Amino acid sequence: MHGKGKIAWAEKNMRVLAKIRERFESEKPLEGLKVGMALHVEAKTAVLVKTLIAGGAEVAITGCNPLTTQDDVAEALREEGVRCFARRGMSKEEYYYALNAVLDFEPDIIIDDGADLIYLIHEKRKVIADRILGACEETTTGVQRLRAMERDGVLKFPVIAVNDAYTKYLFDNRYGTGQSTWDGIFRATNVLVAGKKVVVAGYGWCGRGIAMRARGLGAKVIVTEVDEIRALEAIMDGFEVMSMDEASKVGDIFITATGNRDVITRGHFALMKDGAILANAGHFNVEIAVNELEDMAVSVRELRPNLREYDLGNKKLYLLADGRLVNLVAGDGHPIEVMDMSFSNQALAVEYIAKNADRLEKKVYRMPEELDRLVAKLKLETMGVRIDELTEEQKRYLSDWREGT
Amino acid sequence: MHGKGKIAWAEKNMRVLAKIRERFESEKPLEGLKVGMALHVEAKTAVLVKTLIAGGAEVAITGCNPLTTQDDVAEALREEGVRCFARRGMSKEEYYYALNAVLDFEPDIIIDDGADLIYLIHEKRKVIADRILGACEETTTGVQRLRAMERDGVLKFPVIAVNDAYTKYLFDNRYGTGQSTWDGIFRATNVLVAGKKVVVAGYGWCGRGIAMRARGLGAKVIVTEVDEIRALEAIMDGFEVMSMDEASKVGDIFITATGNRDVITRGHFALMKDGAILANAGHFNVEIAVNELEDMAVSVRELRPNLREYDLGNKKLYLLADGRLVNLVAGDGHPIEVMDMSFSNQALAVEYIAKNADRLEKKVYRMPEELDRLVAKLKLETMGVRIDELTEEQKRYLSDWREGT
Amino acid sequence: MHGKGKIAWAEKNMRVLAKIRERFESEKPLEGLKVGMALHVEAKTAVLVKTLIAGGAEVAITGCNPLTTQDDVAEALREEGVRCFARRGMSKEEYYYALNAVLDFEPDIIIDDGADLIYLIHEKRKVIADRILGACEETTTGVQRLRAMERDGVLKFPVIAVNDAYTKYLFDNRYGTGQSTWDGIFRATNVLVAGKKVVVAGYGWCGRGIAMRARGLGAKVIVTEVDEIRALEAIMDGFEVMSMDEASKVGDIFITATGNRDVITRGHFALMKDGAILANAGHFNVEIAVNELEDMAVSVRELRPNLREYDLGNKKLYLLADGRLVNLVAGDGHPIEVMDMSFSNQALAVEYIAKNADRLEKKVYRMPEELDRLVAKLKLETMGVRIDELTEEQKRYLSDWREGT
Amino acid sequence: MHGKGKIAWAEKNMRVLAKIRERFESEKPLEGLKVGMALHVEAKTAVLVKTLIAGGAEVAITGCNPLTTQDDVAEALREEGVRCFARRGMSKEEYYYALNAVLDFEPDIIIDDGADLIYLIHEKRKVIADRILGACEETTTGVQRLRAMERDGVLKFPVIAVNDAYTKYLFDNRYGTGQSTWDGIFRATNVLVAGKKVVVAGYGWCGRGIAMRARGLGAKVIVTEVDEIRALEAIMDGFEVMSMDEASKVGDIFITATGNRDVITRGHFALMKDGAILANAGHFNVEIAVNELEDMAVSVRELRPNLREYDLGNKKLYLLADGRLVNLVAGDGHPIEVMDMSFSNQALAVEYIAKNADRLEKKVYRMPEELDRLVAKLKLETMGVRIDELTEEQKRYLSDWREGT
Repeated sequence: MHGKGKIAWAEKNMRVLAKIRERFESEKPLEGLKVGMALHVEAKTAVLVKTLIAGGAEVAITGCNPLTTQDDVAEALREEGVRCFARRGMSKEEYYYALNAVLDFEPDIIIDDGADLIYLIHEKRKVIADRILGACEETTTGVQRLRAMERDGVLKFPVIAVNDAYTKYLFDNRYGTGQSTWDGIFRATNVLVAGKKVVVAGYGWCGRGIAMRARGLGAKVIVTEVDEIRALEAIMDGFEVMSMDEASKVGDIFITATGNRDVITRGHFALMKDGAILANAGHFNVEIAVNELEDMAVSVRELRPNLREYDLGNKKLYLLADGRLVNLVAGDGHPIEVMDMSFSNQALAVEYIAKNADRLEKKVYRMPEELDRLVAKLKLETMGVRIDELTEEQKRYLSDWREGT
Repeated sequence: MHGKGKIAWAEKNMRVLAKIRERFESEKPLEGLKVGMALHVEAKTAVLVKTLIAGGAEVAITGCNPLTTQDDVAEALREEGVRCFARRGMSKEEYYYALNAVLDFEPDIIIDDGADLIYLIHEKRKVIADRILGACEETTTGVQRLRAMERDGVLKFPVIAVNDAYTKYLFDNRYGTGQSTWDGIFRATNVLVAGKKVVVAGYGWCGRGIAMRARGLGAKVIVTEVDEIRALEAIMDGFEVMSMDEASKVGDIFITATGNRDVITRGHFALMKDGAILANAGHFNVEIAVNELEDMAVSVRELRPNLREYDLGNKKLYLLADGRLVNLVAGDGHPIEVMDMSFSNQALAVEYIAKNADRLEKKVYRMPEELDRLVAKLKLETMGVRIDELTEEQKRYLSDWREGT
Repeated sequence: MHGKGKIAWAEKNMRVLAKIRERFESEKPLEGLKVGMALHVEAKTAVLVKTLIAGGAEVAITGCNPLTTQDDVAEALREEGVRCFARRGMSKEEYYYALNAVLDFEPDIIIDDGADLIYLIHEKRKVIADRILGACEETTTGVQRLRAMERDGVLKFPVIAVNDAYTKYLFDNRYGTGQSTWDGIFRATNVLVAGKKVVVAGYGWCGRGIAMRARGLGAKVIVTEVDEIRALEAIMDGFEVMSMDEASKVGDIFITATGNRDVITRGHFALMKDGAILANAGHFNVEIAVNELEDMAVSVRELRPNLREYDLGNKKLYLLADGRLVNLVAGDGHPIEVMDMSFSNQALAVEYIAKNADRLEKKVYRMPEELDRLVAKLKLETMGVRIDELTEEQKRYLSDWREGT
Repeated sequence: MHGKGKIAWAEKNMRVLAKIRERFESEKPLEGLKVGMALHVEAKTAVLVKTLIAGGAEVAITGCNPLTTQDDVAEALREEGVRCFARRGMSKEEYYYALNAVLDFEPDIIIDDGADLIYLIHEKRKVIADRILGACEETTTGVQRLRAMERDGVLKFPVIAVNDAYTKYLFDNRYGTGQSTWDGIFRATNVLVAGKKVVVAGYGWCGRGIAMRARGLGAKVIVTEVDEIRALEAIMDGFEVMSMDEASKVGDIFITATGNRDVITRGHFALMKDGAILANAGHFNVEIAVNELEDMAVSVRELRPNLREYDLGNKKLYLLADGRLVNLVAGDGHPIEVMDMSFSNQALAVEYIAKNADRLEKKVYRMPEELDRLVAKLKLETMGVRIDELTEEQKRYLSDWREGT
């Protein structure tokens, strides 16, 4: 049982959150509030939980994915008296049962990751909706869902799109997913990346991170895209761009990071080389059409943890982590330091909702920029880095259109 | 005299503009219009001029910087009957004289780079302002000036911020400036970049490009910034971040790309090592305080073209290209292919103004996104690259918030 | 229990060895020979064992390090009837007991990794020495020991320095150690590499690989060296070079890869920052002076598997994998594909000894170049890569000194 | 006329040679000796000439390539009283006339680059051979020729293969050629490297440098090779490897660096895309079959300095610098700092011949390692870098084969 040790190690490396926690401990800004959370339950999340508790909140938590809970961490949280309903390898029923358990706790504020919890409130637990002061959403996919809900006029409480904080998405998606996806693939496969043809589907922030690290590990990277400008950027960044049909014929490792469904499907499987490896780094397990792969297979077996062989008769394909988030299912999720920044934003967003609930509308809000910048400032401080400041003259220059040649 | 040959070579490599020119030749969308331009007069610009003429326009042009004109290209333009007033090494008076000459031509549409020409109209040639249908601005610095003018309510005609097209600033500033700055430094110095400590001031798009290429050339890169989020990005990208005071003590080569004044000043010169090299990649020559350097020097001499030695008594510092845009003054400016995309935007923006002048207000407009995307599509086409398209089901998925775990 | 599955997966990705095994199966070149092995007992090694058996050999095997055996693989080997004495977490006594058990088997040919087994024969089991036809040594450290033995005139049988095959050390040490060291660190720590200052001690092939991948993961890399030419190469490769004393003050993660002892010692620990992480990638656990660290600590605790906290009172330092080979102890060892090439060399070297034993002297031999090249050719074949061939004219040109300007 | 300025700038950046020159000035080790040189006559070479003169030598020099002399530097040398016979754009007859002029000077020691001068002595000026104490050869191609001469038993005096010094070939070929080849291509073409498919023929030290920098500039790099091990290294380094036939169909820019003839020939030209660019970075202009290209062309014209268009009817190909060394013909040759190290080796090699002539045989010698290391030490000194030293205990450990697990 390493639950407590893992949390202690995470705390050591979450230095921004430590600074916020220190302030929370003296100011108690969350006194009397109940926070209901659905996040990947592992050590970094535990440190966020402890920070909210330090701020005066009561917390109930479950996982936001059936496969990503680390049981030793969940146990350590329960030992500290937190209502934690998560367990690794839940069935879909158990997953939703646990989400409902968090709602039974009657939370004032929600922290969600993928918007399953918020969606559940809107569909099945409408009664609760009215007492919710606001919610924080952690990931791109969730924010997309929530903006669609806002657009359709059904959103019942304010949401802070924590994902859209610069200090979250510019770092977490790019540097976090970039590294942790490979961590997951390393653990699941033990294959050499150098010399491989790695196909990255999607050149958003996650895809960029994965592609950048793939190159850093010695791979030849192929990018697929549906957006012409991103496609051009990928080319100029030194990557090859082609359609997924073309890429299917040459790739050794395929990684999806589009936030969309059916990125790799039956037709692509048919084109792939014997031995190709498939992994997903997007939030939901819809990017690779696993059911179609199963359909095509004459036999399936698990060779290593999180590595399943699909024998298609004429060739074998290998799926990692069941097509779910490979970095979380096969690895430890994001590196601690990126979650430090993401969860510092979460902590500040919860505090912001607590203080401003009466002024917020039923909309998806961007993370307030001053809080976003505060996280960056604290992070630089913890690293001992000093940067320059604009002089008054420089500020004036920037806004003076009379200066020219 | 290679003017004509240079233009032929540029044409060969400006394949997007070639496609637009083909259409312009048959559609003549600029028939009867006069275009007045202030751009760096070299081969790529000449291809834009020829494209506008193919579209039916008459053109008058001068430089947007006293030192960046390539005389053989200017001559080749004049031989083709273009009103070209540019000459390399103009004095400030001659520079403004030439700008005025362009305005004497009574242009309907302006293409500017740095906003000197537009500013001149607003300050000294107000009469002309009324006949101007609109203008296109090429660079960040110019757009900043124009937005400030809009904010102050003095802007007298609509402006398209061509600089802000994705297919311009995401490519030109990053990949163009990134490469061409080093091209300029290579020519001016012949020093080895590998193993050097290169200080890049500013981590905007230009700074990123310069830093990325510096690393690609084997340098250890130090970034200075005033923005905490950009500073963090630079750190995560593997660069060292420090204040300019600290960087001054260790840098071998300093490159400014901030768009601001007084980035490297007297105090920094005093801290620098013997032999340090200074270059500017920002639009105006205000980033390095050249006058303060001259002030501190006991003697000054030019050792190579665009390389001047300042002997400060206890050490020698070396300034490139007089503190002006090193890529244009010491090199050939941006690579042809990035200007192909930038100038394709310019051509389409001029056409857009011609067609929509009556509906445009006295504001700074973003480049219309459909034109921006058209440039990207044409570029991919010229490269023979195919990308994927969203299926109807995928489009639906992206906007459907009901899909979850 | 994934032993069999892991071996199946390794087999799938060891395509060069598969080709050799195919030939071995029909030619049976090792018929009647007994091979005694001391290698890290995990899936890739099992595939080598099965290849030798396919060639007709009988095999006994134990580990070459007390901590690197994967018990499920050892069990799977035993189930196939292989004499396997390895177990994870052996004491020193058990370790030597197992080595002796391999020798009791009376092997004709030895495969060693670190030369512990060969050294044991020379010191304690001299009687066996005479029946040994020859040995193969896998690693730099072992080859160094054996060359020293040859120099001192005590070597009792021929040894093939498999480590020195181009297709081994140019790939295994650089690409294998480079990736797998980070794999081990990821698993042990879950920290972000981007933005960290990583100190790599030693810029040999292993150090280069580790440094290259560290940069690829976004780190700022500092190299320490004792060789001035390697130090210069590191600088020109874009890394910072300094003494370990200086590096100790700034490093976030320290990785030793020198093949020498006492690279990081008491004085360095004293200079380090709170939170610094220490790992070793060299063969023996002598590079980091772990006993001195224990000495300085007021308390020690294990926070995660393979991550131990040393509280020095004023700060905490973190040691990975007990100072042993971090890639093997905390990870799965080298990626499969590099071991494919290394072990293909081993298989061919064993066959070479079998066929040439009577002509070999008591010396350390380089891997025969034609076998080395054969491995490369087979590897390119398995990747479907075609390369050029010299024409007769080109061969003539290369050897003709009359051709000039 | 910048000859003197260029030399002053080179001197400023050749800090190792400056240290040697200081010692030469006081010790005068070359007193009474005549040195005959054939090197690229530009600023860095001038600093070597001045160093030898400082050591007491008399010097006569000409170019080692008809196109690489910088006339202003040659003139500056003549003004200082050096016998300099080089001029840019010599005919083949003039080139050999100048080589003979150097020999008429009756040199005691030769410095050669490509071995044309040494070959001339052996073929046409045999009388002189007897008075030659020894020679230094600068480049791989020259060393290959000289080793072939030694093998054929015709070499008439000792030669130091300065090229083979670690501090020469590990730096000059890799970092020097890597950067300067791109410098030359930038100047000749002004094209964007990012996003281009760059084909590098040969993955020796030069090819590696060119490929590494191409990637650093954003290119997708394809390597062609005839050696299977180098081919595998290129793949593992993340490059694509294919035959020149395959590469011809996809490449945008082709660069030869093999040291061999006929690397790109008629058949390849036929396969290339419209607009492909061809450059050579090898010593002699035999790698690209220029005569076959001329043969296939319906017309040829020069568009820019060092850029020639070959119109093949159905497409146009572009040859840089006439197929000669693109870094020297289109640029300033190697960066100053790498020549500092190379020429420091030259200066020390000349001194070594002067002191040891009576003990040297008619062989090609490696650069003495202690001199090679001295250059590295002086270089680190000039950069202010400190490295570690082995302790006595560490030295003992490295040679003690008894230390094991």
